[in-house]
Amino acid sequence: MSTSFVDGGVTAARGFRASAVTAGIKKPRNDLAILMSDTPAAVAGVFTTNRIQAAPVHLCRERTASGRAQAVIVNSGCANACTGAQGVADAHQMAALAAQALGIPESLVLVCSTGTIGVLMPMDKVAAAVPAAAAALSPDGGPAAAKAIMTTDTVDKQVAVRLTIGGRDVTIGGMTKGAGMIDPNMATMLAFLTTDAAVEPAALRACLVAAVEQSFNRISVDGDQSTNDTALLFANGASGAPLLNERHPEWPAFTEAVNTVTRELALKIVRDGEGVTRVVTLAVRGAASPSDASKAARAIANSLLVKTSWFGGDPNWGRVIAAVGYSGAAVKEELVDISYDGIFAFQQGRPAGKSVLPKLEEVLRRPAFSLTVDLHLGDAAYTMYTADCSEEYVRINAEYMT
Amino acid sequence: MSTSFVDGGVTAARGFRASAVTAGIKKPRNDLAILMSDTPAAVAGVFTTNRIQAAPVHLCRERTASGRAQAVIVNSGCANACTGAQGVADAHQMAALAAQALGIPESLVLVCSTGTIGVLMPMDKVAAAVPAAAAALSPDGGPAAAKAIMTTDTVDKQVAVRLTIGGRDVTIGGMTKGAGMIDPNMATMLAFLTTDAAVEPAALRACLVAAVEQSFNRISVDGDQSTNDTALLFANGASGAPLLNERHPEWPAFTEAVNTVTRELALKIVRDGEGVTRVVTLAVRGAASPSDASKAARAIANSLLVKTSWFGGDPNWGRVIAAVGYSGAAVKEELVDISYDGIFAFQQGRPAGKSVLPKLEEVLRRPAFSLTVDLHLGDAAYTMYTADCSEEYVRINAEYMT
Repeated sequence: MSTSFVDGGVTAARGFRASAVTAGIKKPRNDLAILMSDTPAAVAGVFTTNRIQAAPVHLCRERTASGRAQAVIVNSGCANACTGAQGVADAHQMAALAAQALGIPESLVLVCSTGTIGVLMPMDKVAAAVPAAAAALSPDGGPAAAKAIMTTDTVDKQVAVRLTIGGRDVTIGGMTKGAGMIDPNMATMLAFLTTDAAVEPAALRACLVAAVEQSFNRISVDGDQSTNDTALLFANGASGAPLLNERHPEWPAFTEAVNTVTRELALKIVRDGEGVTRVVTLAVRGAASPSDASKAARAIANSLLVKTSWFGGDPNWGRVIAAVGYSGAAVKEELVDISYDGIFAFQQGRPAGKSVLPKLEEVLRRPAFSLTVDLHLGDAAYTMYTADCSEEYVRINAEYMT
Repeated sequence: MSTSFVDGGVTAARGFRASAVTAGIKKPRNDLAILMSDTPAAVAGVFTTNRIQAAPVHLCRERTASGRAQAVIVNSGCANACTGAQGVADAHQMAALAAQALGIPESLVLVCSTGTIGVLMPMDKVAAAVPAAAAALSPDGGPAAAKAIMTTDTVDKQVAVRLTIGGRDVTIGGMTKGAGMIDPNMATMLAFLTTDAAVEPAALRACLVAAVEQSFNRISVDGDQSTNDTALLFANGASGAPLLNERHPEWPAFTEAVNTVTRELALKIVRDGEGVTRVVTLAVRGAASPSDASKAARAIANSLLVKTSWFGGDPNWGRVIAAVGYSGAAVKEELVDISYDGIFAFQQGRPAGKSVLPKLEEVLRRPAFSLTVDLHLGDAAYTMYTADCSEEYVRINAEYMT
């Protein structure tokens, strides 16, 4: 019962088709995608906790409550956020246009948007492009769709895995578009996952929530979410494998495969973060409580002084311990260990000798390294995937005009 | 009863002397300062809430509890933080050396340090320099001391004001060293305030706490404080003015004068923030509660996407409202107003027309502007002083080696 990576992204699983066309919403590039299951599928969604939510998020939240959907229409270039009643009407109109072109009930169509906030969707352009998008749907369309949903991403992000369940090949695929920032503080994260497994809707939802917590939420800040963040998981049963739920013996294998897809997609987001030069696997261990472990990790991962020191290749553990100090987590200076790729910079409250500095500097020059902080106060741990903050990051975000 | 600005900084008030000498702790520059009152003074202190606290902070917290002190010895170049038992011994030794040179009891001497974390204080250099610092004490020494406490600051920061209380001239002066960052997330903020007013210690403490809340805390993030942040206020009574406490009729005039000094010093910190090109007075109004007002303001002020858009001169109100959305503050999109120097970019949930964009862009090019967010949900308000984040900021903090 091994899981292997396969090609095809969001259309790797049987019975899914996708397409991408140019609507020209913001620029003349492919910016409108449709992802469709051949048959109505079980669906689960996880959405931003931001109190300001884009119109498509409201639509998706309502429609995924039924646990069933068949297609999603996605655009880049316009977030359809802070667009008032017109924005809500436009999101519904996008679903209606797609439903008509696909010949399926409007209630089974979801909508996702990403791009500039506060600009109305150019509905004439969308309406003109939807029929072509419907006509272009293909079982090989995953890669094209993955490109169409990009905004400031520099590479498309797709993953698919295959495993055997009940003697049948089951495939789980996905595509995502990056948070501009490494923690998606406002830059929209969209993730679309598909599987040809058959899954009970309630179990599918539990699976998605757990997978997101272990992946996309580990590159994010609690609550620091954009107006549009959305993750959707469709399960259409086209594999012919037996219906899965949490009591099925092969449920752990299935959920672990979903976790693999979401974790790989999340890492792709970090690697493609704006201006990123170093990817850091940050582990806080020995915390007094899970909440403390999470608080300490998030404080470190979001400290601008820590992130800029990584960019500078500076093993500046002082900034790391100071971030732990203001995180709210319990900490005793004399117990703390801080290590980079296993080399201690600070151990039991004492700085490593100067002789260790060249080794630490060598680690900090690596494109990827681990930073481990052991508080030695308990057994709670939390791991995050984060990155440095470079001058390039500032340049990109200063130039991204309204 | 008017208050006027005067020269002299921390030695503008009668009966205070200061000095600065080169100990060579990190670089060959003036890096050791002493500030002394001619007589024992009432003293109040406010300290970092970071759970990792430098040795001098522990010493100051203990000694200011008595409400009396006469001198403080300050060094830059070494923070004496995360230095264990040796650091504690060194801080006490610094006080002892100063007490001996000044001929006053060690219990009346405070210690402050700022600089690199995790490096032991070079006590031989300090010991060699203290006698010269004591000998150099002068009523004109304020400006020199203000320079000696600088780290990444580019200009020294001093303010003094004079008012009349009980028919006597009373002076309040101060000096501060900048947070490297605009919110002193770990970069140490030190502030030293002196007055020749006579003030009861409990009232002095209340005055300092209130003044810090309206100034240094408005450029900071709650809890995002360095290991060394310290503000000290000495009142030596040398003016001959009557003893002040909270029931004295001229107490409001005195506290407002202290507020003026701390607010001016705080603004100097913002203006001299690393890489700052734009200073922003950020006001959140109409919040449902004071806590909501503060949460929303801090989320905006600390959003890297907002800060980089300011650097880019981009009136990107979408990032502003999204920050409010994840701040935890109650918000209703359809009620929100966002304006820059009084020009609305978003009003009652609707984006301003494109015709306003040139005006907004003109505001964003100003070196200082106001950003006002009215939530229209209540009457709570919170104002902060903040700034943009530039490529220069990243460069400075990437190069500041351990």
